[in-house]
Amino acid sequence: MIGSGATVGMSGFTGSGYPKAVPQALARRIEAERAAGNPFRLRVWTGASTGPELDGALARVDGIEFRLPYNSDPIARERINNGEMEYLDMHLSQVAPMAWQGFLGPLDTAVIEIVGITGEGDLIPSASVGNNKTWLERAERVILEVNRWQSADLEGVHDIYYGTALPPHRVPIPLIKPTDRIGQPYLRCDPDKIVAIVETDAPDRNAPFSPPDENARAIAGHLMEFFGHEVKKGRLPASLLPLQSGVGNVANAVMEGLNEGPFENLTAFTEVIQDGMLTLLESGKLRVASATAMSLSPEAAASLNDRMAFFRDKLILRPQEISNHPELVRRLGCITMNGLIEADIYGNINSTHIMGSRIYNGIGGSGDFARNAYISVFVSPSTAKGGKISAIVPHVSHVDHITQDVQVIVTEQGLADLRGLSPKQRARVVIEHCAHPDYRPLLKDYFERAMRDSYGRQTPMLPGQAFAWHQRFLDTGDMRP
Amino acid sequence: MIGSGATVGMSGFTGSGYPKAVPQALARRIEAERAAGNPFRLRVWTGASTGPELDGALARVDGIEFRLPYNSDPIARERINNGEMEYLDMHLSQVAPMAWQGFLGPLDTAVIEIVGITGEGDLIPSASVGNNKTWLERAERVILEVNRWQSADLEGVHDIYYGTALPPHRVPIPLIKPTDRIGQPYLRCDPDKIVAIVETDAPDRNAPFSPPDENARAIAGHLMEFFGHEVKKGRLPASLLPLQSGVGNVANAVMEGLNEGPFENLTAFTEVIQDGMLTLLESGKLRVASATAMSLSPEAAASLNDRMAFFRDKLILRPQEISNHPELVRRLGCITMNGLIEADIYGNINSTHIMGSRIYNGIGGSGDFARNAYISVFVSPSTAKGGKISAIVPHVSHVDHITQDVQVIVTEQGLADLRGLSPKQRARVVIEHCAHPDYRPLLKDYFERAMRDSYGRQTPMLPGQAFAWHQRFLDTGDMRP
Repeated sequence: MIGSGATVGMSGFTGSGYPKAVPQALARRIEAERAAGNPFRLRVWTGASTGPELDGALARVDGIEFRLPYNSDPIARERINNGEMEYLDMHLSQVAPMAWQGFLGPLDTAVIEIVGITGEGDLIPSASVGNNKTWLERAERVILEVNRWQSADLEGVHDIYYGTALPPHRVPIPLIKPTDRIGQPYLRCDPDKIVAIVETDAPDRNAPFSPPDENARAIAGHLMEFFGHEVKKGRLPASLLPLQSGVGNVANAVMEGLNEGPFENLTAFTEVIQDGMLTLLESGKLRVASATAMSLSPEAAASLNDRMAFFRDKLILRPQEISNHPELVRRLGCITMNGLIEADIYGNINSTHIMGSRIYNGIGGSGDFARNAYISVFVSPSTAKGGKISAIVPHVSHVDHITQDVQVIVTEQGLADLRGLSPKQRARVVIEHCAHPDYRPLLKDYFERAMRDSYGRQTPMLPGQAFAWHQRFLDTGDMRP
Repeated sequence: MIGSGATVGMSGFTGSGYPKAVPQALARRIEAERAAGNPFRLRVWTGASTGPELDGALARVDGIEFRLPYNSDPIARERINNGEMEYLDMHLSQVAPMAWQGFLGPLDTAVIEIVGITGEGDLIPSASVGNNKTWLERAERVILEVNRWQSADLEGVHDIYYGTALPPHRVPIPLIKPTDRIGQPYLRCDPDKIVAIVETDAPDRNAPFSPPDENARAIAGHLMEFFGHEVKKGRLPASLLPLQSGVGNVANAVMEGLNEGPFENLTAFTEVIQDGMLTLLESGKLRVASATAMSLSPEAAASLNDRMAFFRDKLILRPQEISNHPELVRRLGCITMNGLIEADIYGNINSTHIMGSRIYNGIGGSGDFARNAYISVFVSPSTAKGGKISAIVPHVSHVDHITQDVQVIVTEQGLADLRGLSPKQRARVVIEHCAHPDYRPLLKDYFERAMRDSYGRQTPMLPGQAFAWHQRFLDTGDMRP
């Protein structure tokens, strides 16, 4: 049912709700065809990242010709960075609209994991929603995977909004609180399009949870202090504003910090629900978490499955075009917290490309959230690779977030509050508050020389030296001289 | 009434509706105080750029310590690039919300040009709205300039929306068509805050209109062909979608092209109304133009004033937080067309910084529109300075728009349709379709070497050579070897 060259829209968002059987069968078939001398490669669309049974299995057999909109699989990453696989890294809120607009080409087959099918023929979505609504509607044919491992109590957790349209027929999205349900709990699918239903019983495979280290705790501490200060100044309500948080151990440390902090009645309007958010829901600090996917450690996923009855009215899973919609992020006034690979002294952020060229994962939803945030925060330890890489550099080697979209940068060294500052004012604050002491004098030196020798002094810069640190790392394995 | 160190919020957006008398009086006073040994500098906020009587006069006497959110005055630009004036270049839709959020500090005095005051005490706005609503509300005291030169028929053209709020109280903005009026025609102002009313009778001073040259006409031709193709493919309605256009002679050439083209019943949802849009309104091709300001040549401004009775029901002027609101740009599905200083082979755009450091104007509304566009188009001649600068470079020296926000790039050489392409696919199309023949082999050479030697091959890049062209221009005055 899936031929070479086909475009396949799969379910899956951060290691949850992706199909487990069909991609592995495809991988075996690709291997067999290749052995028989027949080239066989696919174009693969998903919600975001998936699990090893999908991206890993297909990339291992070099079965992916083109991939969008996000990847975090290490084998696929290697293929991409070897130039063997084309990868289009997209704003996650824009995937569904652009598919509808016809900008991505036709979609041949959708392969979607679900939890079950109701008596009326509606589909009960799985642990992620992603772009499933759009794939089901746009694909010529549909293959369903019904996964018994997922909790049957997921029924009713989802809110699938069917009110989107192409312009000139778009209307306001009627969501004004993170708790609002504006759609229906089920996915629709034209039964005539369903060509196969596969039963599975396999767990989602997210990366195991790495506990917050000292740096992550320090970052969380700076942020808690900042939030407290903003509440005192009247610039944030006592229950803060809807939280968006990227994934990782810094994000989990922030959740820990919130769990021990003074803020009550919190809400989350975010992309994925991590371990730390479940803890906050359990303690009652967090009232509700709205997202498009679960992104849990194996232990948390198992525990959620066991206790879904407790969690189900505190969770809402939406299509990613809604969970990440700029209209909603701006309206709700989200406090957004995302990671970075490197920031420059002016507050430009590189979230994706190591040394400017080697992609790590992708921009994901960070652009959807950061530009429309009430306060856009980026977090990272100040160094990587045991100090050989500085996360604060003279000039970022790739830009995902421009200075206008970055209000606060936090490292274990401190917090730079960049609101209302000009580029030169920002530079002084970033160097002073965020840079590691090993790199601080080097950054000051660059900035002073740029102030003296730059062509213009709005954003002082020396083209011949801006990437010297990156080049040095490539030459010597260390950004330091 | 305005002391040294004060923050003053002035009206004005692209040379229209700015106060003409008070800033010049301030400039004289600053000069006198300085002569008497008293330092005197201000923090100046506006809608966007203004006229020589405001930014020019105050910058000439070095009277501006800090400026936001946009500037195009040549004297102020020189101060900024000399490092003598701090300048915060902001997304224009975010100025009002960030002022309300308290992120920009307190506002002491508002100085606002209006056309008149009604019997009920409402203010009739002038030829631009900008941030006037917010400055009137946030300032401690208000100075009004009533300008008799502006047409009295401007009354009723404006649509001032008073439904904005801070989160968690924000609601959907009830605008679903560019023609919708969702507010009231007048600005409110607490009479107790008004400390002075100044009468003036002076014209707005926009830069004169430079007629489209051959390159601009070629760019417009490529775009018209593209629009026709998209309509034929069913990806755009026959009346296109609401148009946003930056300023300049390329924009005017596009308007000329539309005036001679096959598309009827057009609408504009944009930031400023230029000469070319008035022509389109006159011919009936354009039904309505919604914006926040007029930006007309002296002749067009005079002609508009004379014929306001004809134009007034075809024009809507809104606060800039509404004209540029991401929610509305995304909902309406705007086709956005903005200029660039340089684009790189991957489609990152530098709209603001010459050689990465020397600011030209600012990002303005281009980020508000481009990220949320249905199709985001960037236009520019392929070279500048008689061929010594290429608008297509290996790596942009500053980023305002990331590749995800750029679907189409057009130069006189051709049009690059980047939708659905990975970075390496984009690079080939940009080099082939947009680069000037003098630079095309050099770009190909860089890209091939980057493909071979880059650390990663998702977005091939050579840190040691990425800015070689910029450095060469700084050294020799020519990007070519």
